[in-house]
Amino acid sequence: MTFPYLDRRDIDFLLFDWLSPDWGAAGPDTVRAVLDLSERLALDAFAPHNRKADQTEPALVEGQVTLIPEIEAALAAYRDAGLSAADFPESLGGSDLPMTAAMASFAFFSAANIATCGYILLAKANARLLAAHASPAQVAQWAVPQIEGRAYGTMCLSEPQAGSSLGDIRTRARPDGSDALGARYRLSGTKMWISGGEHGMGENIVHLVLAKVPGQDGALPPGTAGISLFAVPRILPDGTRNDVAVAGLNHKMGYRGTVNCLLNFGERDGGATGWRIGAEGAGLRIMFQMMNEARIAVGLGAAALACRGYRQSLAYARERPQGRLPGAKDPAAPPVAILAHPDVRRMLIRQKVVAEAAMGMVLFCAHLVDLVRAAPEAATRAEAEALLGLLTPVAKSWPSEEGLNANSLAIQIHGGYGYTRDFDVEQVWRDNRLNPIHEGTTGIQALDLLGRKVLRDDGAALDLLARRIAATCTAARAAGMADLADPVAAAMADLRAAVAGAGPDADALANATPFLAAFGHLVAGWLWLDMATVAARKAAAGTGDPDHLAGKRIAAAYFIRRELPRIGPDLAALREGCTLPCDLPDAGF
Amino acid sequence: MTFPYLDRRDIDFLLFDWLSPDWGAAGPDTVRAVLDLSERLALDAFAPHNRKADQTEPALVEGQVTLIPEIEAALAAYRDAGLSAADFPESLGGSDLPMTAAMASFAFFSAANIATCGYILLAKANARLLAAHASPAQVAQWAVPQIEGRAYGTMCLSEPQAGSSLGDIRTRARPDGSDALGARYRLSGTKMWISGGEHGMGENIVHLVLAKVPGQDGALPPGTAGISLFAVPRILPDGTRNDVAVAGLNHKMGYRGTVNCLLNFGERDGGATGWRIGAEGAGLRIMFQMMNEARIAVGLGAAALACRGYRQSLAYARERPQGRLPGAKDPAAPPVAILAHPDVRRMLIRQKVVAEAAMGMVLFCAHLVDLVRAAPEAATRAEAEALLGLLTPVAKSWPSEEGLNANSLAIQIHGGYGYTRDFDVEQVWRDNRLNPIHEGTTGIQALDLLGRKVLRDDGAALDLLARRIAATCTAARAAGMADLADPVAAAMADLRAAVAGAGPDADALANATPFLAAFGHLVAGWLWLDMATVAARKAAAGTGDPDHLAGKRIAAAYFIRRELPRIGPDLAALREGCTLPCDLPDAGF
Repeated sequence: MTFPYLDRRDIDFLLFDWLSPDWGAAGPDTVRAVLDLSERLALDAFAPHNRKADQTEPALVEGQVTLIPEIEAALAAYRDAGLSAADFPESLGGSDLPMTAAMASFAFFSAANIATCGYILLAKANARLLAAHASPAQVAQWAVPQIEGRAYGTMCLSEPQAGSSLGDIRTRARPDGSDALGARYRLSGTKMWISGGEHGMGENIVHLVLAKVPGQDGALPPGTAGISLFAVPRILPDGTRNDVAVAGLNHKMGYRGTVNCLLNFGERDGGATGWRIGAEGAGLRIMFQMMNEARIAVGLGAAALACRGYRQSLAYARERPQGRLPGAKDPAAPPVAILAHPDVRRMLIRQKVVAEAAMGMVLFCAHLVDLVRAAPEAATRAEAEALLGLLTPVAKSWPSEEGLNANSLAIQIHGGYGYTRDFDVEQVWRDNRLNPIHEGTTGIQALDLLGRKVLRDDGAALDLLARRIAATCTAARAAGMADLADPVAAAMADLRAAVAGAGPDADALANATPFLAAFGHLVAGWLWLDMATVAARKAAAGTGDPDHLAGKRIAAAYFIRRELPRIGPDLAALREGCTLPCDLPDAGF
Repeated sequence: MTFPYLDRRDIDFLLFDWLSPDWGAAGPDTVRAVLDLSERLALDAFAPHNRKADQTEPALVEGQVTLIPEIEAALAAYRDAGLSAADFPESLGGSDLPMTAAMASFAFFSAANIATCGYILLAKANARLLAAHASPAQVAQWAVPQIEGRAYGTMCLSEPQAGSSLGDIRTRARPDGSDALGARYRLSGTKMWISGGEHGMGENIVHLVLAKVPGQDGALPPGTAGISLFAVPRILPDGTRNDVAVAGLNHKMGYRGTVNCLLNFGERDGGATGWRIGAEGAGLRIMFQMMNEARIAVGLGAAALACRGYRQSLAYARERPQGRLPGAKDPAAPPVAILAHPDVRRMLIRQKVVAEAAMGMVLFCAHLVDLVRAAPEAATRAEAEALLGLLTPVAKSWPSEEGLNANSLAIQIHGGYGYTRDFDVEQVWRDNRLNPIHEGTTGIQALDLLGRKVLRDDGAALDLLARRIAATCTAARAAGMADLADPVAAAMADLRAAVAGAGPDADALANATPFLAAFGHLVAGWLWLDMATVAARKAAAGTGDPDHLAGKRIAAAYFIRRELPRIGPDLAALREGCTLPCDLPDAGF
């Protein structure tokens, strides 16, 4: 059976025709084999319980979290297929699969069952943070079991009173000597929104916890500078339970298979035992590695759900007969498949341009991760790192926001049926609604993009992107697509003009979210132009399926002509320094 | 307690400052009293079971539909307060309350509990259709019990195989003599998506059913011309059950308190008994009265939900402390309420401009209904009718589409909490997702607007709207708001140019949905300009709350500067006759 939630042709196009990276030791054949395996395993072990996990949400029974057993079985199948370890270095038991291939593999699982994937992505990002920042003993103790698929991990940042404002966290870590695992602390505090925070799967759960070490006076240092990072395992090295208790579950609208907890650390005397990872005060900086990886993974999940809604509504449109085309004179003629209706095709192409650009954006970021890690030239690594920093908030938020809109169109194509639980698209839409929120809301991503990545460093990263876009436009013009290259080049110029025209930082940041939306559209337009150029080249060479390649070129034209112009009003907000929301008196809302 | 889901100041502003119609016999004091009553009753009897009805969806137990008892209690309270009959003529036991006031009253109930309101709106629209098209005996038998709140009604149009394509319905009505209730028929067929289709509330359910009378050869006439309308009561005049059986319930993502059924008519021999309403073959034309009323009511519901999400996220933003303003230097300073964050204010003003314009759009249509019914001059009635026809698809779809986007922002303001069932906004968003679908999808409304209302009659209705908008622009300029009037006038000109430039109808209709979106934004911009002019006049006169009036003027500026320009790309699709979705080969999706 063909994988119904993602078109393998599109993944192959993105990987082998468009990005076409140096696959390193793996080689393209290995990558293809991994994709074959992923497609099959996602369909066999992940897809079947997607709906059941939604309908049977995790429960807290006498302090124990119960999950449907299919989740653990799926995770075991994933591990047994060698996929838990594949994208880790050989020194850690992995096979050095490039991130680009690993992400493409994960796209199939995400499309099949986004909630079960939550446990995998957290374990991988957790282990990768430890591999980069923890001591060898700590890596052996906590990273390796996760890489081997025997343990799981979490990231514990938010607290009920602090939300995204991490400087305000109150979890405290009191020094408690040291041992072979490093400096030991006793932690007490409450952490909110902890995905995978408690369950009975695997041999352990490694909580990576942000906390503050109190000063001499017992007070916690204010702001983010005083934050350190701690590994707080559910099960201590001596096999006893650590003092980490689930205080409650969050009942979510979607993404229900990923249990989400309120966790109390140190309810009993003395506190939960944790070991510091990295230097004191370096917690937030270190945690950003995990957050950045998680952000790209969130973008991947949103892209995969956009693909899923698109493929499902396309399949429905091919099968469902209804109505006749405008101008059809004979009311007794049989109805047409709704794929024939122009408005249905409009809703499909709108989903296509979002889903495939979102997937492209995320895989491009994964490719940048590979370059940062392994490119031979330092300049290439540095350039990839700058671009990756610029694009991470975009690859997290654009697929999330636009993917959600795309999923709404998938419902609309199904009509009333799409609003019922007889079809999957309503769940896809509910699941995807989390993605603009977790791992930093869209507003947080916007502040990161405009405040940290664009306005600082004299816009060096933006210059880099502009050069890349200019090169793509040149190549597209050479391929006879000046009509599409020109609007992309103009959009880049408009965006730079808006940035240049923006006032002082605080005023500019008030319009960061519209800027992020425009930036995302520009990046998507650039990627579509690049993909269309590749498709045109393939078509001219007579390789590949002509309809599939024509689809790419027409989708690129649709995005660039119909969607890209939408950035105008968003850029205007930044350029004009719109202050209207702040001008409105509090009592006038 | 203040009504938390709708600001009474806004309703008062719309009714008494902005529309300020001739209230007829009722007079403004009666209208105010109705609003007071509605606000209180909605809070007491409708709001408390909104969440319970979502969590305890209707069930089919041994052929009986079970609803939570609070729904029937709320409907009884509504009836006992005199609101079921209020907006019907005195001759039918009502008090001739203008539709404008009735809709404003209903806004409070819709905001408090959209699903329980479903039963009311269907009964009213059903009774109103009967009052206009049925015989006196039929009116006494089926309309009066609904007006008196003793019976309920449905509209039975869709069938599983036909969806929106009513010409393809297969329900057949075989003549069966006549009696005091008129020409009698026996009906057999299956109707899908029947809200309120079966339950045990009230003494009867009056199904208004579209069906076809077979010809001599037993075949059904093709197309819509052969459709007639029948009243098919659940309980026959002799007190026995009619042959109408619930074949299943639809399990919806939201709007759960309104039971939605698949109904079988005539499962047993002979068929369900029904009586024809109006002439044979006139069924669809007559049903359009009910559909048009229901469409405006859907718009009202969507507007009310937009208001609800806005008010709830505003209340949350006032209460929730988190973070500090950009540039705040002292990390030990207490956090600010998130209302202080520019991006939160942006998400609030975006909801405000949608919620209040949507409510204004719907109440303006209700006002047009009143003029069509009761304006003394024939020219006024004719003009109101033309405008109402033009604006009905807009008042149905713009609040539905934009209200849903607004509700997503309400979730976003709540952060992770908004994604949980601890807060209401996730339900509001799920409930509102139905509104772009039922009573004609957005795509159907778009075909109606562009195909039937704009392109026919040489655009006479559009001319009328253009004159109204020009008059508003003139008044706004006189009030010193040329900076806001000019963009509205320009948008109107752009829209006309796009219509004039559109190709033959079939090509134009392929871009009907983007056109509808642009048209809705233009109407919203016009209404905001008009409301801002009224607010400026009031502020200059020193009447009204200055902050509230400033809020209106700044919101108008926000809509016209930040939102109205978004119509450009949508109009371009029509003007350029975009064919890209149809150019894309089927196999290329």
